[in-house]
This record gives sequence, C-alpha cells and structure tokens, in this order.
Amino acid sequence: MSATITPATAAKRVGNFTVAFDQVRIAGRAAVVGPHEGKGNLTAYFDHIAADPMWGESSAERAERHYLRTACRLALEAAGVRPEDVNYFLAGDLLNQLITSNFVAHSLGIPFYGLFNACATIAEGLALGAALVDGGFADRVLVGASSHYQTAERQYRYPIELNVQRKPTNHWTTTGAGAALLARDGAGPRLTLHTAGRVIDYGLKDVNDMGSAMAPAAADTLLRHLADTGRHVGDYDLILTGDLGRQGSKMFRMLVKEAGITLGGKHKDGGVMMFKPEQQAGAGASGAACSATVIFGYAIKEMERGRYRRVLCLPTGSLHSPLSYQQGESIPTISHAVVLEW
Amino acid sequence: MSATITPATAAKRVGNFTVAFDQVRIAGRAAVVGPHEGKGNLTAYFDHIAADPMWGESSAERAERHYLRTACRLALEAAGVRPEDVNYFLAGDLLNQLITSNFVAHSLGIPFYGLFNACATIAEGLALGAALVDGGFADRVLVGASSHYQTAERQYRYPIELNVQRKPTNHWTTTGAGAALLARDGAGPRLTLHTAGRVIDYGLKDVNDMGSAMAPAAADTLLRHLADTGRHVGDYDLILTGDLGRQGSKMFRMLVKEAGITLGGKHKDGGVMMFKPEQQAGAGASGAACSATVIFGYAIKEMERGRYRRVLCLPTGSLHSPLSYQQGESIPTISHAVVLEW
Repeated sequence: MSATITPATAAKRVGNFTVAFDQVRIAGRAAVVGPHEGKGNLTAYFDHIAADPMWGESSAERAERHYLRTACRLALEAAGVRPEDVNYFLAGDLLNQLITSNFVAHSLGIPFYGLFNACATIAEGLALGAALVDGGFADRVLVGASSHYQTAERQYRYPIELNVQRKPTNHWTTTGAGAALLARDGAGPRLTLHTAGRVIDYGLKDVNDMGSAMAPAAADTLLRHLADTGRHVGDYDLILTGDLGRQGSKMFRMLVKEAGITLGGKHKDGGVMMFKPEQQAGAGASGAACSATVIFGYAIKEMERGRYRRVLCLPTGSLHSPLSYQQGESIPTISHAVVLEW
Repeated sequence: MSATITPATAAKRVGNFTVAFDQVRIAGRAAVVGPHEGKGNLTAYFDHIAADPMWGESSAERAERHYLRTACRLALEAAGVRPEDVNYFLAGDLLNQLITSNFVAHSLGIPFYGLFNACATIAEGLALGAALVDGGFADRVLVGASSHYQTAERQYRYPIELNVQRKPTNHWTTTGAGAALLARDGAGPRLTLHTAGRVIDYGLKDVNDMGSAMAPAAADTLLRHLADTGRHVGDYDLILTGDLGRQGSKMFRMLVKEAGITLGGKHKDGGVMMFKPEQQAGAGASGAACSATVIFGYAIKEMERGRYRRVLCLPTGSLHSPLSYQQGESIPTISHAVVLEW
C-alpha cells in the first residue's frame, strides 16, 4: 500500500459501470452469413448470403476468413472508406488463438487488436472502438466478429462427420460475420452508451445448455445499465440479447422479473430469431457471428426504416474452453451492453 | 459508397500510427514467475517467485491462474487500490479461449475485456488501458498477461511427458504473469506514446523458430514509431523487444540496420535476458508472461533506480495456432510499441 490514487471521477463515466460516448456513429456495417442462416427468419436483413458454407475452400477455417473479410469489405464500402484510412481493426472469433481475425487483419493491413469475449466479442469491439474514436485516439475504427458452424463444432464438440446426436438445449453456431466502421460522422445510428460486463458464473457446467449459463450475465449487465443511467425498459424500443436461445431467454426474463423489471414485449434474442423451427437448430443460434449479424443486419436496418429509435444490445458469451470443461470447471459467462440511437 | 466521412484528425494522434497519452501512469505493477525463471538472470527483479511451478494445484491450467491472480493482487496493493475501485480489467493469455484470464476476471469481479495478441498481449492491454484512462472513460484500469510452460507446451507442441527433443531455435515459455494498474496519478512511470502493430507475415512457417517470424513485426513497428514521432534511437535509454530470443534479435537488428537505423547498445530482448545459458532454454524465453514480467520487473525497477529515463517497449507475438500450422499456413506476427517515461 505504497501510494494513494487521486479519487478523480473520469469525465465520460455514468454511474458505476457505464460510459457515455458523445460522437460515435456506425458509419457503415455489414452482415454476411452462410446458406443455412440465409434460409432462416432474417434472410432479408443480410447483406450477403454465401451459396456455399465452405466458400469454395478446402478447409472450414479458410472459409471462415472469407466471411469476415467480406463483412469488413462491405462495411468499409458502405462508409466510403478505404482500409488505409482506418486507424484500428478490432476483431475476434471463436477459434483458438483467433486465427480468423489474425489472417484477416494481415490481409487488411490495418493496425490490429485481437479481442475475445466469445459470442459477446462484437460488443467488446464496439465498446473499445467507440472509446478510441470518442477519446480522440482514432478517426475510424473497424470492428468485426465471425464464427463458422463447422470450425466451432469440431473445436468445441465433435467432428461433424461423427454426426453426434444433438440435445434440444444445444445451440447451432452461426456461420457468418458482422463488421462495422465507427467514426465521428456517418449515416448510421449513434453509439451512445456502454455498460461493461463482469464475469458471472452460477456454477453451471452443462456445455449443452450455454443459454442458461449466459442468462445471469445478461441480467446482471441489464440491471446495472438501468441503475447507472436511470433509464427504464420503456426508454428502449428493443432489448436485443444474444445468443441466449430459447432456454436462456426464458431464464433471462425470469431473473429480470425477480429483480422487479418487466420486459413486456421489448425483448428479442438474436439466437431465437436466426433459424426457423424446421431448421432444427435446438435452442437457437450462437457463435460470435450471431449477435454481430443480428445487430448489423436486423437491428440497424429496422432503425433505418424507423421501426426502432433506441436499441439496447446485450450480446452474451460463454468463456469456457473444451479443456476447462473437461477439467470439471463451471462455465464463466459475460455480457456487454451497447446502446444504439437514431 | 453511400456516405462520406469527414476527414477529421483525431486530437491524440501523432503521425500515421501513433497516439499520445497526456496523463497515464503505471500506479502499481507486479511480476510473478515460477522457480525456473526465478533461477535465471532476473531473480532480483521479480516481486514473487513461486516455489512450485504447479502452485500446489493438480493441473497446470489451475496453477497458471494463481500466477495471474497474484500479479493482479500485488499490482493493486502497490497502487493502494481495491478491486472494486478499478473500472476495467484487460487481460489475456495463450490458452485456448483465454481461460486463465476469464477465471481470474471472475474472481476479481472487475468488468472485463479479454485480449489476445499472443506474446504481445501485454502491450495491447497497456495501449487500450491507457486510452480508456486518458480518454476519460476510466479512473483505474488493471492490465495483465500470463503464460505457463506446461500449459503452453502441451497446447502448442507436445505433452511434456513425451520429452520431445528441443531445437536450438525453440523458445522456452515463461511461467509467470505481469500486471499493472493504470491511473492518472501514481508513483510509477508515465505511459506516453503508443504505436499499434500491424500483422506482418514474411511467409515463414517454422514454429520452432518464432523469433525469426516475429522480428519483422518488431522492426516494422519500431520504424513507424520513429517516423511518426520524429524521435531517434538516441532519445531512448532502452529499446526492449520481447520475446524475440537470440535468433530473432539478430534478425531484428539486421532489418533495422537495413533501414538505416543503428541501435548501438540500446537494444535488449526480454527473451534473451530471462534465462542463463546453462538453463538450456534454446533461443530464449517466450510466452505472454515474458514481456509482461520483464517490463514490470526489470524495466520499471531500473527506471525507479534512475538507470533508464525513457524506455521503448516492443513486445512481439506469433499469431498462429497449432491448427493453422498443421494446415500449412505461415505465421502471422505482431508487435505493439509503448513508451514509458520517468
């Protein structure tokens, strides 16, 4: 206990856990998915639907890079910005050592920070990217996240060739990628508030029901966000969690209700929205691309059309690894909140 | 090409790739290592040397968490700060899905952003943490990185029980962790400048010689840093790369010399410094803990003693995965620069 820190309060902080951004906009964004996702509920919202999940490549890992690279290219084009005019590329994916993001960062040539908060990575990227723009450290930041059913399935579960029977609470990893270009100006919505997630662990150990493990993290972040900002559920047109799926969404609404908050019809979950029932995707979609494509596809397009004015995004992530699961550890989870306003 | 971005220049930017921080200090820091590292060249600089590499645990993965948790605790104590007074915890490690950082973030309870730039992760954390403090988004940010010889060896190479013969260009993963508390005030050095790394890939594929793969990234970042800031090698008392090792350091000096820059006696490499020759650590130390412990142990302690006034830290990272290597991909690499001034 050698030194004492001046107890200054940082200028941009709101309450205990939230920060406000004065001038950050989503200047461009893109959602790219595979053919399975393209046949789901959100077809009309995606900017590109690949005809082949493998994108003509011999490995799914190489294929995943095409999704992220294409989402980045389309987001830059939408903003009218060249890669060389972007100060930072913040990206993450589910693959060990983030190889999708690393190889895409090399092809883009933009200074790179690798991020990992599992399926909540896109929210981590939006938050840190917004801080870099709003704090005067960057004019333009590109943020992206990707996942691929085949790369995730064999890394987290089994080789798909084994055809292992799925459980009703299993999620189906989204094949796709989302990317957004953050800047002080631009045509898209403003990114105004961010409440950072804490790691929450209720001791659940069932990796075949990640929705239930992640629901407490989403509830924790939502409640802290509302307490910090003095806002109410009614101040938002949409509270978009993801990827809780059906099971996790039920638990999320229960936990929020126990805290005295009624969500009414305001809550949707990206994992629930993605697939049609006949696609047999278990509890719903998951993957770092799930929240990324639902926010940059569905939420922002519906904002552009005037359906939503204020959206609270709550991507959720499971922070376990196959090894931590095999070693008997519980599943740590996280959820970051970002607010988009038109 | 729908919108046009205002070509404003962000206030804190210096040149094309560098940002300046007005008021960020290392208010507390700690370097914790295992017994093998404790018997090396830097014994006197470490804050804690564990007697048992396994820290009394049955798995090396559980042991690694003790190193990071202890480094965080000691850094907070040195700054006189409680975890509940810290706004963000930014951390990363080499393990798949960053399980060391995730579990430590849970025990700390601080809002968490997971980072991965391999062995350059501590520089990524210092840069993003400094931006959060300097931009007014945080009063205090805790940054950490860890690695463990046994967890890394079996994940990246072979189970250590196989006793696979090592090559002279192999690195020895550092068992340990470093952590620092960033704030506007405090007793430690200022963090003044940061030049972000681009992903560099010269097409090298030998994972048994990561030093040669990473050297071009360190050279690229150093040259961009000097060009942006107008500084010369002579403006620094120490240029501390890591973890290039002996092979990579040779290549780094050659590349820098080819660009017309003479390093003279200013260059040291954390990977070279860590172990004694008789410890048979191949080309030198590596691991996310290597740069973290050498910066927070050696560099800052020597600044406190008045030996160095200005230190340019250039941690380096190999961004491959065992899978990308097996699939025949080359090794993408990165190096971020951070400047410490007394």
